[in-house]
Amino acid sequence: MLQIALAPDSGTPLVDQIVAAIRTRIDDRILHPGARLPPIRRFAEAHDVSRFTVVEAYDRLVATGHLNSKRGSGFYVTSRALPARAAESGEAIERAIDAAWLMREMAADDPARILVGSGSLPAAWLDEAGVLRALRALSRRADVRPVSYGSPQGYAPLRAQLQVRLAEIGIGATPGQIVLTYGVHQALDIICRYFLKPGDCVLVDDPGYWNLFGNLRLYGVALLGVPRTPDGPDTQALEALLAHHQPRLFFTHSVLHNPTACNLSPATAFRVLQLAEKHDFMIVEDDIYGDLAPDAATRLASLDQLSRVIYTSSFSKTISGNLRVGFIACRPDLAHRFTDVKIVTMMSSAELSEQLVHQLLTDGHYRKLVERLKGRLSEAAGQALRMLERVGLQPDPEPRGGPFVWARVPGLADTSELARRAARDNILLAPGSVFRPQSQPSGYLRFNVGFCADPRLERFLGDARKT
Amino acid sequence: MLQIALAPDSGTPLVDQIVAAIRTRIDDRILHPGARLPPIRRFAEAHDVSRFTVVEAYDRLVATGHLNSKRGSGFYVTSRALPARAAESGEAIERAIDAAWLMREMAADDPARILVGSGSLPAAWLDEAGVLRALRALSRRADVRPVSYGSPQGYAPLRAQLQVRLAEIGIGATPGQIVLTYGVHQALDIICRYFLKPGDCVLVDDPGYWNLFGNLRLYGVALLGVPRTPDGPDTQALEALLAHHQPRLFFTHSVLHNPTACNLSPATAFRVLQLAEKHDFMIVEDDIYGDLAPDAATRLASLDQLSRVIYTSSFSKTISGNLRVGFIACRPDLAHRFTDVKIVTMMSSAELSEQLVHQLLTDGHYRKLVERLKGRLSEAAGQALRMLERVGLQPDPEPRGGPFVWARVPGLADTSELARRAARDNILLAPGSVFRPQSQPSGYLRFNVGFCADPRLERFLGDARKT
Repeated sequence: MLQIALAPDSGTPLVDQIVAAIRTRIDDRILHPGARLPPIRRFAEAHDVSRFTVVEAYDRLVATGHLNSKRGSGFYVTSRALPARAAESGEAIERAIDAAWLMREMAADDPARILVGSGSLPAAWLDEAGVLRALRALSRRADVRPVSYGSPQGYAPLRAQLQVRLAEIGIGATPGQIVLTYGVHQALDIICRYFLKPGDCVLVDDPGYWNLFGNLRLYGVALLGVPRTPDGPDTQALEALLAHHQPRLFFTHSVLHNPTACNLSPATAFRVLQLAEKHDFMIVEDDIYGDLAPDAATRLASLDQLSRVIYTSSFSKTISGNLRVGFIACRPDLAHRFTDVKIVTMMSSAELSEQLVHQLLTDGHYRKLVERLKGRLSEAAGQALRMLERVGLQPDPEPRGGPFVWARVPGLADTSELARRAARDNILLAPGSVFRPQSQPSGYLRFNVGFCADPRLERFLGDARKT
Repeated sequence: MLQIALAPDSGTPLVDQIVAAIRTRIDDRILHPGARLPPIRRFAEAHDVSRFTVVEAYDRLVATGHLNSKRGSGFYVTSRALPARAAESGEAIERAIDAAWLMREMAADDPARILVGSGSLPAAWLDEAGVLRALRALSRRADVRPVSYGSPQGYAPLRAQLQVRLAEIGIGATPGQIVLTYGVHQALDIICRYFLKPGDCVLVDDPGYWNLFGNLRLYGVALLGVPRTPDGPDTQALEALLAHHQPRLFFTHSVLHNPTACNLSPATAFRVLQLAEKHDFMIVEDDIYGDLAPDAATRLASLDQLSRVIYTSSFSKTISGNLRVGFIACRPDLAHRFTDVKIVTMMSSAELSEQLVHQLLTDGHYRKLVERLKGRLSEAAGQALRMLERVGLQPDPEPRGGPFVWARVPGLADTSELARRAARDNILLAPGSVFRPQSQPSGYLRFNVGFCADPRLERFLGDARKT
């Protein structure tokens, strides 16, 4: 029986409380589409409210499309919130595309804009001269064939090099288990294409990586948000979701989670893998920020050795987002299938970019670059945290490194309006709601420490906190 | 009423003839899923055969899954042949991936293999030195920012240059109407993602571009093959299909059609556009071989000016398949939407590749390259046609230029087995069936004239024709 904690003396009308509670449960997929709500009389008795109150609450939820009523049979959760088929009515497209606005804004060519909502390090921190040098070296190498189609699975020497790098973090993968992709995006896209069909449901971090949510919505896949704790996914909430749903995949960040900047704990990792085994789902572990972690960190793939875990990463955050070189490491049979999906959807790799990354990985350049980036991030994080403290914003949880600070704005239930105001001042903030699977309101902002030094940002936040 | 021409004296049992005729109509979508077959008695009377013959034919079609019988109601075409939802049972995936084998084989790194089934020009014909030179020039240019994410819509100067090039073939498009993509593949993929949902149907050329078919199958979209005449799509067959189906898109090649190497005639172009208007579908015109056409040719987009036509092309066949630079030209509203889909699915462009192509287009290199390629193609085609004549194969229709010759193997209803035998001799033939929407048998082979000079090929074909 649905049990809602009502506060009769709170000043908020009981009808509003019931509506809000049921909406939240629908949004969070605790009440799933098709679920029947308790009959009016039973709900009223169980909550000690009048039947009239329940009727009004249910009616309002019917009006907003959250419930529908079947004559003589009761009230049911509609499937409205789950676009069962992509592009069914344009709605799925529209919702998916909403997720693109932040990226579109981010890419606007305006050097005066403060990109504090960005997911990447400042371009000035990266080694542009080194990339150009590697490009020149490449243009003189006899084995570079820039006019041939690349190999479908990706440039073999780079895959061999990735085997070495993965071994360093305890993941055993032969080159045959590695598929190169256009960044993590194509990696995730290929995985979706292979595993999912419209109407399926998947688990995602809540908060989590918003651009992935957009792509999943395009597929007409329902998102089940797994709340994030400082130790990783909330395994109790995960278990509760698994009681009602049969997700095929769980997309998660283990190291320097985007946006909360926390790491997965070994105990949580173990529990997540146990649940994956018990409930028969695969885990897609996106490790795009992993190389920037200041300390050793736990990865699901290091425990599970690519049995239920599909591991993806890329060099977009460290070498260049422009080259679009990422990869999937997975079971051999899946690597074969993913390569086929890659052929059918995109034909081949851009081998030249892969050769460039290979060059940078093998000439010792990359290690030095990453050490330098970690140093800059650590310094910038110190400054950013002091600035946030001055304007009264609280990091929550304490970041473990990397580019992000996830900070709550005290007294604000939703930071979307704040972000809109900031945009008018040419400051691009990333409001918490974009990181939530159903764009639920959030009182958080994600800060990129690489863009926090501009005094206009501190001034804006200080002024905003006063009003 | 279904009317089948039976030949009682042909030696083929009447049951077999009926089964074959109905299967063909199901495969070709003349009988669409859910269609009811004539009652046994009516069918028997109309065709002057015994009811027993009809019962046996229908029963066999039930056994093969082409029909199902509903008690007391009759026989219906099953939807078995149309995977309504991608990955429903793995079948859609498997069928889509089948299409990848040719590409996988093509990419196998074996210099001794004769790639006569390839869709690309020999790498040795392309200007590798020129591309490397452009790469070096790029690595010294001050405006090249190889570590920043590219612009979502694509490098603006290249889009401006494409506007000029499109104007030369009579297509008016502002840079805002152009979206850069990873080759034509991503262009087609974005268009699918935006317009299609599982269970939709689309029109495709029959024969047509096979790798697209694989991607469409992955989406769970049904393919309606429009037979190809030497003048373009068979508009009568198209009209017949439109009487029963409501396709959302028609994917077609107008210039140097793959695989038949023919051009669209102006009259056929006009009729196709009329039908698109009347039946409210969009046309996706893939012009990837267009730059290689020896003569002026008709494009749908030049008539329609991107109202119902979405135009795509790339530089994969002329500059390099490795760089993966293609584009979509379309209505401004669609360009905006496609850019958003591109962001959500792949984040951004690989701007470095786009800058490289821009460099080659603007320094006068490209025009000279294309002229040289046309000359080589023309010479190679002459030699290839003489070789095919010697081994008794007939081009059908007469090719109008470009890399392909579509040739019938006399006396062979299906060339698949021939292609398998050739593969054992390290000769990669492209059998006609891979170009057909339902992989129907075909007595044709597609030859790439750039790979026909090897005497092993002539020997193999000569021997095969004798046995």
